[in-house]
Amino acid sequence: MPSVIPDWQQTAAHAQAAFKAKVEATGFAVPTVSPKQLNVTSVALKDVLSSEEIAITGSSIGELVAKLAKGDLSSEQRTFCHRAVIAQHALTNCLTDIFFDHAIERAKHLDAEFARTGKPSGPLHGLPVSLKNQIDVEGEEMNLCYVGWVGRIAKKNSAMAECLLRSGAVLYCFTNMPQALMSGETVCNLHGRTTNPHNRALAAGGSSGGEGALVALHGSPIGIGSDIGGSVRIPCAFNGLYGLRPSFERMPYGGSTNSTEGFTVIPLVLSAMSSSLDSVKLFFKAALDAEPWSPLCFGFISHNGIAKPDPPYLRALETMKKALLAKGHKVIDYTPVDAAKGSSILTKPFLADGGEAIATQCATSGEPLMEGAFKGVVKPPAVSTYAFWQLCRDRRDYIAEQLAAWERTKELTGTGCPVVALISPPAPYPSFRHGDLQDIFYTGICNLCDYPAAVFPVTKVDPAVDIKAEPYDFASDFDKINYERYDAEVYRDAPVALQLIGRKGEDEAVIKMMELAVEALQSA
Amino acid sequence: MPSVIPDWQQTAAHAQAAFKAKVEATGFAVPTVSPKQLNVTSVALKDVLSSEEIAITGSSIGELVAKLAKGDLSSEQRTFCHRAVIAQHALTNCLTDIFFDHAIERAKHLDAEFARTGKPSGPLHGLPVSLKNQIDVEGEEMNLCYVGWVGRIAKKNSAMAECLLRSGAVLYCFTNMPQALMSGETVCNLHGRTTNPHNRALAAGGSSGGEGALVALHGSPIGIGSDIGGSVRIPCAFNGLYGLRPSFERMPYGGSTNSTEGFTVIPLVLSAMSSSLDSVKLFFKAALDAEPWSPLCFGFISHNGIAKPDPPYLRALETMKKALLAKGHKVIDYTPVDAAKGSSILTKPFLADGGEAIATQCATSGEPLMEGAFKGVVKPPAVSTYAFWQLCRDRRDYIAEQLAAWERTKELTGTGCPVVALISPPAPYPSFRHGDLQDIFYTGICNLCDYPAAVFPVTKVDPAVDIKAEPYDFASDFDKINYERYDAEVYRDAPVALQLIGRKGEDEAVIKMMELAVEALQSA
Repeated sequence: MPSVIPDWQQTAAHAQAAFKAKVEATGFAVPTVSPKQLNVTSVALKDVLSSEEIAITGSSIGELVAKLAKGDLSSEQRTFCHRAVIAQHALTNCLTDIFFDHAIERAKHLDAEFARTGKPSGPLHGLPVSLKNQIDVEGEEMNLCYVGWVGRIAKKNSAMAECLLRSGAVLYCFTNMPQALMSGETVCNLHGRTTNPHNRALAAGGSSGGEGALVALHGSPIGIGSDIGGSVRIPCAFNGLYGLRPSFERMPYGGSTNSTEGFTVIPLVLSAMSSSLDSVKLFFKAALDAEPWSPLCFGFISHNGIAKPDPPYLRALETMKKALLAKGHKVIDYTPVDAAKGSSILTKPFLADGGEAIATQCATSGEPLMEGAFKGVVKPPAVSTYAFWQLCRDRRDYIAEQLAAWERTKELTGTGCPVVALISPPAPYPSFRHGDLQDIFYTGICNLCDYPAAVFPVTKVDPAVDIKAEPYDFASDFDKINYERYDAEVYRDAPVALQLIGRKGEDEAVIKMMELAVEALQSA
Repeated sequence: MPSVIPDWQQTAAHAQAAFKAKVEATGFAVPTVSPKQLNVTSVALKDVLSSEEIAITGSSIGELVAKLAKGDLSSEQRTFCHRAVIAQHALTNCLTDIFFDHAIERAKHLDAEFARTGKPSGPLHGLPVSLKNQIDVEGEEMNLCYVGWVGRIAKKNSAMAECLLRSGAVLYCFTNMPQALMSGETVCNLHGRTTNPHNRALAAGGSSGGEGALVALHGSPIGIGSDIGGSVRIPCAFNGLYGLRPSFERMPYGGSTNSTEGFTVIPLVLSAMSSSLDSVKLFFKAALDAEPWSPLCFGFISHNGIAKPDPPYLRALETMKKALLAKGHKVIDYTPVDAAKGSSILTKPFLADGGEAIATQCATSGEPLMEGAFKGVVKPPAVSTYAFWQLCRDRRDYIAEQLAAWERTKELTGTGCPVVALISPPAPYPSFRHGDLQDIFYTGICNLCDYPAAVFPVTKVDPAVDIKAEPYDFASDFDKINYERYDAEVYRDAPVALQLIGRKGEDEAVIKMMELAVEALQSA
């Protein structure tokens, strides 16, 4: 990003002229419409589209998907590109970017796959899907409608784009939105205003108003918008479409772009907008399609990157591994992503108010503050709300990194799927002397990532076998402290548990897998 | 809460002495244990408990629940109270309050109900459940282990307490925790330190360490703790118990007490701790038990308390009502709780950074800030992180009020159940002239409460029938503005949609009910 641009209007004008030229270079014919004509939903298209083209872009999602599933996607793709250009150029100014060449290339690739396998590539095989200008597509410009972001290229697909591509969809254009999504109508400094195709004197709604206008004009069968205060539903309502605001965290959001990252108190969600209810259903089902069943492989964490667990835990982990292997399950080693970073991201939000919340209550009696788990941690001063949002954003990014690492275990499990659960100690120590220093990252990583996690007892500290190890390279100051204070005699009789970690929402599966682990231990 | 207490130590000493007297007044005999004895899990109890009492408190959850389901709860209840006193007084200092009289009274009531109906009162019928000292129980002291909160009585049950009571459980004591939950061991200024029953020289773990010690000593079959960094799992691990940290928002949390309210970036969750895996399963299933099927009654919002919808919406609502009634469904009127407050709670977090997030991006080019939906709204300066947490807390409290109001509709539906969904306009206007003032609370309430919500087209603005109403008492400044600017001619052809609102997580049900509503409209 350039740090200073003297004339934002000049940048915007250049970008608009370049986009206009790009649209015209497609060569698609557009109808002539009088600026005075308010309702443009029924403009005659017979001079610019064949009757077959008009029919396919106006057909129901069922007909469209059925037709696409039989192949020859390029021509359908081209037809929707054409109608998108008509919607943009002649009628409502709903688009912000087009990448038709990549879409046609993708359609040809899907055709080739279809010819090779005889099967469609997913429930959305060949379906053109338009995206609000905040849903990153690898290699395409993602400017979020900020003038200062012109020319910024997305380095990778957002989770939503990835999910659509896996379902067989074709992505071909971005649509307009208001600055920072903060309006129920659609107008921004970079791309100007989108008008309502039913009555161009009226607002198209917002913030997903570009999608609203484009879909209403049949320039897209399904558009993906986002909703933080009505931003899918308002433009659906204003443009006569169907749309759903899903509950938070039902639809994939990661990797999409926003400028109020970390603002999670009113959660932003992505969802489909369409002229048919069936499309909304099709999209929701495709996005949620479950993964196939697989045999069980567990990931074992024998060091979380901050502190090596005390000897009784290494014994418990070995016992657990053998018990699972004896039952025919698989195990691999797993190390959490960048534990030092994760631990910092977990700790900082707790201290972000400068201790005001707790100090306020201590002040009601004068009782002293107790440091607890934060003993030995430098306490920074309170941060601004904006800075607090950055901490929240860091947390979300870390969760995404952890999930990606978890996903990557599918290369190692031999089951074709990632590990079903992680198994780790619940702490580096079985307990500690009253008042000692603590490090909670073995459990805290689950709170950080919202993983359901269960603990279950495995054994007890036995001074006869849990001999202190020889000194090793310490991963952190705490690792050294924990090593030095370990004394099997002092820790005698302390229970030794393990922790079984699942993925968000898989609480019942975690209970079931804990049961399986405990049964394996019992029969070992 | 008193505003100044000169000597917190004196207050704490008084509270401790009073609690000690309360425990002694129970008259329960306790064993004599040398302070030098570290492992107190196998202390001989034959002089203070009968062999039958020892057996019942040591029995499996399956045996215990089966025995309780056959009645005579008072004696079992009394036995667990006795063992809790032993755990506290003679061994580990795990308790912070006891309310045995209320528990025995409740047990007698359950016995009477059992005698009357012949059926247990739920899956936890008569089961004693201990609670961490942050889970509010109506009428009992809730001091959160702050000295300054001594004497503060809970006005109503937390959702978790309510849920346990509905399942038939008996609540009888609170357990110790560290100041503000912020430690992996359990020590606070008000109640002192809880020790580990396996080795009293070691930490009991935390922050739910009181539960850990109590449950390990069979003073409770199931304890409810909370986990924000390992606070259920660490004490389970250190005390040889089973426990689960569920995903956020799977277990009811509302109405529990904390002093870092609004700190939601690392979410606090409640869950069970027990010496058996089966107890964890039993608790989780009981807490999640589904409501029975019911006929469908829809709640209609024809005014959200901020702005009356324009005439086309009143027509659409009437059409929708008639169509649903014709299909045999029921409808009632519904008004959201305190819309002005809700709208303020929705708006304030967006403005809490003083606009820094968006201004930062505008500064990259010099493009001007656009007000969008916040046009006309006074922009307050940025607030502190602590103040931002208060806004987050306000949001959570508002969600609880809305849910309570939704629940209360069961008195009106005639189905015995609350309304299955709400139906409202998606905005007070079908659209508006470019650049006009907006109010997004019809959709925004769903973002505020994380309700899934769908919109679907019903009709279009028709100047022949959508006649401007006579002036009425305006609910807000915006209501007046919206009334005055309504002009059916200007709004000609604008689509008119309705919004169907479900409860968090019921996304698929919302899609299904939208389908049902659309089919009802089509066949009307």
